[in-house]
Amino acid sequence: MAARRLKHWGWGFEDQHPAWEDIVSASEGIRAHLGFGETPERPVPLEEVRMPEPRLEAPPGIAAICSTDRHDRAVHALGKAYRDIVRGFRGDYSSAPDVVAHPRSEEDVERVLAWCADAGAKAIPFGGGTSVVGGIEPRFDEPAVSLDLKALDRVLEVDERSRAARIQAGALGPGLEDQLRERGLTLRHFPQTFEYSTLGGWVATRAGGHFATGLTHIDDLVESVRAITPAGTWESRRLPGSGAGPSPDRMLIGSEGTLGVITEAWVRLQERPVHKASAGVEFETFASGAEAVRALSQSGLQPSNCRLLDAGEAALTGASQSGNALLVLGFESADHPLGPWIERALELCRDHGGVGEATEAKSGEGVSAWRGAFLQAPYLRDTLVACGVLSETFETAITWDRFGAFVESVRGAVLEALGEGQVTCRLTHVYPDGAAPYFTVLAPARRGSELEQWQEVKAAASEAIEAGGGTITHHHAVGRDHRPWYDRQRPEPFAGALRAAKSAVDPEWLLNPGVLIDRGS
Amino acid sequence: MAARRLKHWGWGFEDQHPAWEDIVSASEGIRAHLGFGETPERPVPLEEVRMPEPRLEAPPGIAAICSTDRHDRAVHALGKAYRDIVRGFRGDYSSAPDVVAHPRSEEDVERVLAWCADAGAKAIPFGGGTSVVGGIEPRFDEPAVSLDLKALDRVLEVDERSRAARIQAGALGPGLEDQLRERGLTLRHFPQTFEYSTLGGWVATRAGGHFATGLTHIDDLVESVRAITPAGTWESRRLPGSGAGPSPDRMLIGSEGTLGVITEAWVRLQERPVHKASAGVEFETFASGAEAVRALSQSGLQPSNCRLLDAGEAALTGASQSGNALLVLGFESADHPLGPWIERALELCRDHGGVGEATEAKSGEGVSAWRGAFLQAPYLRDTLVACGVLSETFETAITWDRFGAFVESVRGAVLEALGEGQVTCRLTHVYPDGAAPYFTVLAPARRGSELEQWQEVKAAASEAIEAGGGTITHHHAVGRDHRPWYDRQRPEPFAGALRAAKSAVDPEWLLNPGVLIDRGS
Repeated sequence: MAARRLKHWGWGFEDQHPAWEDIVSASEGIRAHLGFGETPERPVPLEEVRMPEPRLEAPPGIAAICSTDRHDRAVHALGKAYRDIVRGFRGDYSSAPDVVAHPRSEEDVERVLAWCADAGAKAIPFGGGTSVVGGIEPRFDEPAVSLDLKALDRVLEVDERSRAARIQAGALGPGLEDQLRERGLTLRHFPQTFEYSTLGGWVATRAGGHFATGLTHIDDLVESVRAITPAGTWESRRLPGSGAGPSPDRMLIGSEGTLGVITEAWVRLQERPVHKASAGVEFETFASGAEAVRALSQSGLQPSNCRLLDAGEAALTGASQSGNALLVLGFESADHPLGPWIERALELCRDHGGVGEATEAKSGEGVSAWRGAFLQAPYLRDTLVACGVLSETFETAITWDRFGAFVESVRGAVLEALGEGQVTCRLTHVYPDGAAPYFTVLAPARRGSELEQWQEVKAAASEAIEAGGGTITHHHAVGRDHRPWYDRQRPEPFAGALRAAKSAVDPEWLLNPGVLIDRGS
Repeated sequence: MAARRLKHWGWGFEDQHPAWEDIVSASEGIRAHLGFGETPERPVPLEEVRMPEPRLEAPPGIAAICSTDRHDRAVHALGKAYRDIVRGFRGDYSSAPDVVAHPRSEEDVERVLAWCADAGAKAIPFGGGTSVVGGIEPRFDEPAVSLDLKALDRVLEVDERSRAARIQAGALGPGLEDQLRERGLTLRHFPQTFEYSTLGGWVATRAGGHFATGLTHIDDLVESVRAITPAGTWESRRLPGSGAGPSPDRMLIGSEGTLGVITEAWVRLQERPVHKASAGVEFETFASGAEAVRALSQSGLQPSNCRLLDAGEAALTGASQSGNALLVLGFESADHPLGPWIERALELCRDHGGVGEATEAKSGEGVSAWRGAFLQAPYLRDTLVACGVLSETFETAITWDRFGAFVESVRGAVLEALGEGQVTCRLTHVYPDGAAPYFTVLAPARRGSELEQWQEVKAAASEAIEAGGGTITHHHAVGRDHRPWYDRQRPEPFAGALRAAKSAVDPEWLLNPGVLIDRGS
């Protein structure tokens, strides 16, 4: 692993970056496919990026785990939003942390926090750095230490009877799944960032896996959490359920590094599924597909996959060129064949005008194939950026009563702000009382002012979401970028309670300032 | 409703109290069935109970909604634990609130809180008063106002597309279900207190319904909550899901009246089930039954009912006299017939030595019949107390890896503390990673010192639960009675965060002092 370096900008490892001639030929395909895009540019190489000198020097006690290496600081300077990719591509690393700490134990975490307190620095807990909301970017004046947990990457205990495991927060998706596979178990949490994000990051940001219903949110997979706070260790009891006061875990889950540094969690596992059933169902309109999805979500059948793609998104991803909306439907079980489940689901689809058939798929096909394509999307974006294409996504959730008008209003607001380009939509998660629409935006980039261009579009999208009653984020988190709308959305007394809770466990506001809540009112 | 008064002690309405001759003949049956119990005594009549004079007088602006009526104060003095029933029976109403307020609007709630702040009084939000943990009992020195929300009892809005309703916090179970039934919908939340408890109380205490898996906890049924806090109105956005920071709702859910007065909630509804399948399955031992339950809970089949009764509990409730453990298994759906579900469930039971058959039951039979008996249990207890029988329950939850030894250790500790009597166990809720064992204790009461007797037993049970790694409460809440063990169980930094959050929204600590958290450290 040590030999393989992450790209200093964009997605993936250095050795995965496509060759220049491949980008050139891709640019032609992009223009043909999208109708826009330009001659590719080359990214600013690492040795030429703009990065301020570090303002901190780690004391001897922790110097061995601290780094001011240029590549290390670059990798911890930006998340993975479009605005991050663009800044990295153009060599803007003004947000680089002064020091990157790589703790190898909880004691190391405590030492780094103590040093930050002494040095007047702020600490940013860092998992995989895949935030798309400015969650790990030091956007403040004080010196910053990025606290990278990835050395804490082990599965420490597996309880096969309860199907649970104690896992360190820095474990990446593939690494923890490899360790669990030996026991025939899986966490089965597959966010799009799976390859590069960590358990601790999932817990801190309330990550959503790619399954549409059931056990897909990390919130429901957490049995207990352990975190280091400046006020001491916060560790909940491992329990299948408890009604003892407001849930301590639910206060840490979604705290985005502001309340403590999550170091480990007990999580709920599943046996690896052996029974699978899937289907692709086409609908004349997104609206009629959504009605079928509503029926499915209220049926109690709990499909693993229930992704409705609008016609544009189906065409874009190569899933269907028919001009219809496409529902990707799937069931998985480790326990029982799923014939009756998928048959009833297809009946519900047909009731709403859907056309499609069940296909009994073996492991590795169907849903798994779709997952592969899903995980490839962030790699492609680096090429789109190089070729002058604005490429970004955002998401929300809304109750069914407002769903149709809401989606069209958000889409309309974004199209108007864009002027030129396309906005497609899919449903990533569905609930009996609503759904999570996920929007993909592709447009000709205004080269040189991509950040301003996207900021206008993002603001238009967020205003439409806010006005329409949606949430500013269903699973991308709040970070720094969503703050204006998050602040309006949350109940005001809750903001006061959260601020006070933060002050109690982090009296000097060392941890990730600017995220979620500010010290002053 | 106004014509029908609650009993001033014990369970139910005055007109439901059995006649004296029925209690006398019941006492003989009790002795025959249990092997203990004594000649019945009569409760102290309301006019003879010991109750301090009220120390407060409501000001003119709210006098019309405030009462110092003896019956009203008695009904708000005690919860429904064994120690409450005994105290009520013996006429000990030293804990009566000074005033009972019956707000008819949120403005009334605000007025009462403002008056409490002025008068140096504390306010106790009161729903149905069915707490079994001292949650609504003024156990403090300051004057107390019981804030009874039951006049706020309406279903205000129903969103049939999203299957959700906005309901006032004071709505009782039957009342809200009656209003929803007109639309073919149900909240389907049936705690044992269903007839006498309120939506607001369920939310405040993280109530558990009687279904074993799936949508049974109020936590998962809440779409948004509205509460009046001394710092203003706390109202969350109505959303099917959101990843925007720690969930505001999850901070109010389980706050037990300490953070705000819950006035309404949007809750998730379901269509009324029309398909049902059920079975009774016998197992030679509780342990082998528990193994089957573990397999069921990990199967993804999600049975509505999955109550495993040990042999003693099966005999006690008249469910089975075979000396075997009994699993009451049921599936319900509004959408699809459940043949494949129950067949696979029975297969799993047989794999673990279970013997039983599926019975396709119509609405009103099977699970519903069991529910009727379940709801009768609290009525019976009043008679047991009159006949000198200690009768109480407690519950917890534990992961499967510790399950067997844990249940026997808790049972053993209670039997040892009791000296004479019986402890039976059933599972009320089951999870892939564990279960919630629910214990029933029946023993000869030490007449005149029942409270001390039970306190010893309860402490022994709680110590065994704490030592064994369980939770001090799975769905009965913390209140005042569980505080010593809750304080040990919760993460210390979380306690600090909760204390600070409380101070932020209730700076004068007006709301339900002594519950969950104290002002000093």
